Amino acid sequence: MSDKTEINSSYIDELTLLIEAQNSNELISRIVELHIADIAEIIEDLSLENAKYLFELISDEEKSAAVLVELEDDTREELLEDLSAKEIAKEVIDNLESDDAADIIGELSEDKKEEVLSHIEDEELAKDISDLLNYPEDTAGGLMAKELIKVNENWNTVQCLKEMRKQADDVKKVYTIYVVDDNDKLLGLLSLRKLLLTERSTSIRDIITTEITSVKATTDDEDVANIMLKYDLVALPVIDNLGRLIGRITVDDVMDVAKEEAEKDYQMASGITEDVESSDSVRELTRARLPWLLIGMMGGLLGAEVIGVFDLKENLELAFFIPLIAAMGGNVGVQSAAIVVQGLANDSLKMENLLQKLIKELGVGLLNGLICSVIILGAAFGLGYSLELSLTVSISLLAVIIFAAVFGTFIPLTLEKYKIDPALATGPFITTVNDVLGLFIYFWIGQAIL
Amino acid sequence: MSDKTEINSSYIDELTLLIEAQNSNELISRIVELHIADIAEIIEDLSLENAKYLFELISDEEKSAAVLVELEDDTREELLEDLSAKEIAKEVIDNLESDDAADIIGELSEDKKEEVLSHIEDEELAKDISDLLNYPEDTAGGLMAKELIKVNENWNTVQCLKEMRKQADDVKKVYTIYVVDDNDKLLGLLSLRKLLLTERSTSIRDIITTEITSVKATTDDEDVANIMLKYDLVALPVIDNLGRLIGRITVDDVMDVAKEEAEKDYQMASGITEDVESSDSVRELTRARLPWLLIGMMGGLLGAEVIGVFDLKENLELAFFIPLIAAMGGNVGVQSAAIVVQGLANDSLKMENLLQKLIKELGVGLLNGLICSVIILGAAFGLGYSLELSLTVSISLLAVIIFAAVFGTFIPLTLEKYKIDPALATGPFITTVNDVLGLFIYFWIGQAIL
Repeated sequence: MSDKTEINSSYIDELTLLIEAQNSNELISRIVELHIADIAEIIEDLSLENAKYLFELISDEEKSAAVLVELEDDTREELLEDLSAKEIAKEVIDNLESDDAADIIGELSEDKKEEVLSHIEDEELAKDISDLLNYPEDTAGGLMAKELIKVNENWNTVQCLKEMRKQADDVKKVYTIYVVDDNDKLLGLLSLRKLLLTERSTSIRDIITTEITSVKATTDDEDVANIMLKYDLVALPVIDNLGRLIGRITVDDVMDVAKEEAEKDYQMASGITEDVESSDSVRELTRARLPWLLIGMMGGLLGAEVIGVFDLKENLELAFFIPLIAAMGGNVGVQSAAIVVQGLANDSLKMENLLQKLIKELGVGLLNGLICSVIILGAAFGLGYSLELSLTVSISLLAVIIFAAVFGTFIPLTLEKYKIDPALATGPFITTVNDVLGLFIYFWIGQAIL
Repeated sequence: MSDKTEINSSYIDELTLLIEAQNSNELISRIVELHIADIAEIIEDLSLENAKYLFELISDEEKSAAVLVELEDDTREELLEDLSAKEIAKEVIDNLESDDAADIIGELSEDKKEEVLSHIEDEELAKDISDLLNYPEDTAGGLMAKELIKVNENWNTVQCLKEMRKQADDVKKVYTIYVVDDNDKLLGLLSLRKLLLTERSTSIRDIITTEITSVKATTDDEDVANIMLKYDLVALPVIDNLGRLIGRITVDDVMDVAKEEAEKDYQMASGITEDVESSDSVRELTRARLPWLLIGMMGGLLGAEVIGVFDLKENLELAFFIPLIAAMGGNVGVQSAAIVVQGLANDSLKMENLLQKLIKELGVGLLNGLICSVIILGAAFGLGYSLELSLTVSISLLAVIIFAAVFGTFIPLTLEKYKIDPALATGPFITTVNDVLGLFIYFWIGQAIL
C-alpha cells in the first residue's frame, strides 16, 4: 500500500509518548493525514485514557463521527460516555448516514436513546433513524440505510439529473439509481454509467434495467451477505411487503457480516465462545475459553467412569490405545461437522435429502476407517503388541471412525433443522461426545476379543 | 430475495428430467430468465454429461462466457475440453474482461495457451491478457483487470465525458474514474457522483480527490483484501514501481479472496487439507481428510509408547484420566492457536513483541488452568477417586493447560515468522502434539505422587 502509515507497535509507542507529553500540535498534524480506519485502529491500540485524549483532538466533526463508527462496540461506548445526549446528537449523529446513526443510537440506554433522538436537528434523519430502530440488527432492515437516490419512471434524464443533485447531498456513495413508480414501488435501476453515457432528455423508461435483485426488510443478514456475494452486488435495494423501496444495503456493511460470520464459525470450532482478539484482556480471553474447557472436563470425567466400568486389570494393555481411540473419534467428528457447517454457511449445502448426505458420509467414514484400521493393525502388530490387542484396536478404530463421521454430520444438520446455529456442534462438543462414545466402543470390543 | 428461483434438489431433479427428455425448448426458456450465478450453481449440481448439454443450450455467448467464469476450476476445465482453441478465443475470451480472461487462459496447458492467445480478435485484449499472465495468481497483479476509465488532469469535464464514452464500452462496472498525468502517473480520482453533479466545463484539476489508496502489482492478495475491507473500497487502483496506473481491482474479486481465506483457515483447523465441499465425491472427501487422520494415528501410537514406558500396573487408576488429560491439552492448544491464526489473518495481531504475547498467554493459561484444576480436584475426589489420584490429575491438568496454551501460541507465531502458513499449526497437529506431551507430563507427575 503506498503512502499509508504502517501502524505497528513502535508507531503506537511514539504516539503514546506524544500524548503523554501533551504535544497536541504534533498529534493534530498527524491525525489530519490519517484515514479514519487508521485512526480507529490506533485508538483501539491505545490505553483508554490516551485514546480519549487523541479522540478529542479530532477537530473535524464529520471525521470524528466516522471514526466512532469504525470502532469496536466497547471502545465506542467508553468514548460516548463523556458526551451529553445533545453532544451525541449534534456532533456525532448529525454527521452520519441513517444506518450508522441507528447502530450507534441502538447501543444506548432507552432513556438516552430518546433524549438523543429529540436533539437531532435534521428532522428527516431523526425520522429515518427512528424507523430503522424497529428492525432487528441481524436482518436486512437492520443493515440498510434510508439514504438512496431514486427517480420516477416518468421522468427523463434531465429531470433525473436535477432531482439527483437535490438528493445527492445526503448520499455519500452513489452506486445505482433506483427507479420507482408513483407509489414508490421499485421497478428497476439505472446505472450511473448509462446515465453518463446516454443523450440528454432520454426517457428513464428507455434505459431502465428491470432485472434487479432485492430483499425484504425481514431477510436474515447472512442471507443478504450470501446474495450480494453470489450476484457480485455493490448495493442491494430493500423493499417492504408491498414492493415499495424502503432502503438500500451497501457492500461494505455486508463484507463485515460475511467476515464476522466466518470468524465466528472458526472460533466456535476452536472452542472459543465469545468474539475475542489477542489484544483483549486476560480476563476476557479466559472467559471466552473457559466454557468449552469445562465441557471438555465433564467429558473427561465421563471417560474415567467408562474406563472404570470395564475391568482394566485383566486387559491392562487396552489402556495403551486409549489416547489413539479418543483422538481419532474427535478428529473425524470435527472434520465431518466442519464440512456441514461450511456448506450451510455459504449456502452450497441443500437441506433436503438429509438421508442421502448421511449415506455419503457413511461411505467416507467407511473408506477412511478401512484405510486407518488396516494401517494400525500392521503398525501395532509390527511394534510388538499382541495380535489380539492389535485386532481390537483395528476393529474399534473402524467402528469409531464410521460412528464419528455419521454423528459429526448428523448433529449439525439436526441443529440447523431446528434453527439452532450448527456451528455450536463443531469443535469441543463433537470431540468430547466422540471421545466418550469411542471409549465405550473400544472397551466393549476389547472385552469381547481379549 | 424476490423473483429468484430457489435452486433446491427438487428443482435440480426437474431440470435433470427435462435434460434427459432433451426438451431443449423448455430448458432454453428457463435459462433465459436465470442469473449467470444461478446457471453456474445449477451446472455444478448436475452430472457432467447433463451439465454439458445444458451449457450448450446457452445461446448468448456473453452469458455462457460469464457462466464459465463463475464455475469451479474443475467443472470449467471439463466444459472447455470440448472446445478448440479457436472456439475458446472467439466464444469465451473475446466476451470477457481481461482479468477473467487471463484467469481462464492461465489454467490451460502451455501449448493451448499460446494457441488461444493467437486467435483472440481484439488485439488490445490479447496484449492485456498476455501482460496479466506474467503476474502470480496470489498478487494484486493477478487480481487486477486492465479495463478502467482514466482521464488526464489537464482535461475539463466535457472532454472527460467524451473520452469516457469511448472507454466505457470496454468497462462493465465503472465505480471511479482515475486521473493521471501525461506520463500515466496516478494522481487521484474523480467520483462519478461529482462528475454528475458539477457544472460542465469545470477543470478536472478542480474536482480531483488526491487522497487515494493504491497498491503495487506485487502486493499479496490477502493484503489487498484486508486493505479493501479496512478502507471500505469498491475499487482499488494498481500501480507499477514508477507510480503509473496499470490496472484496478474490484471488490467482487476480493470478496472471494477474503471468503476463501477464512474458509481455508477453518478447514485447516478442522483437519481438512484440501478445499472440499459436501457435494464432492467420496474419493475427494476421503483424500482431503486422510492426511490428518494418519498424523492423529501416529500421535496415538506415540501415546501408546509413552503409556508403555511407565509402569501402569502399579498405578492402574491413572488410566482412568488419560482421556481427560489428552483432551484438555488438545482443546487448550487449539484455542490458543485459533486466536493467533485469526489475529494474523485479519491483521489485528502485530508480529513484534512476541515475548509479550507469550507472557500474556501464560497468564490466560494460568487462570484457566487454576480454575479447571480446582474444579477437577473437587469433582474427582467427590466422585470417590483417591485423594492422591485427584491431586495427580489436578496438578497435571494445571501443567498441561499452561503448557498447551504457550505451545499453541508459540507454534503458529513461529511458522508466521518463517513465512509458513500458520493455519497449518491449528487443529489436529496441535491436538496431537499436546496429547502426547500431556500424557508424558501426567504419568511423570503420577509416578512422583502415587
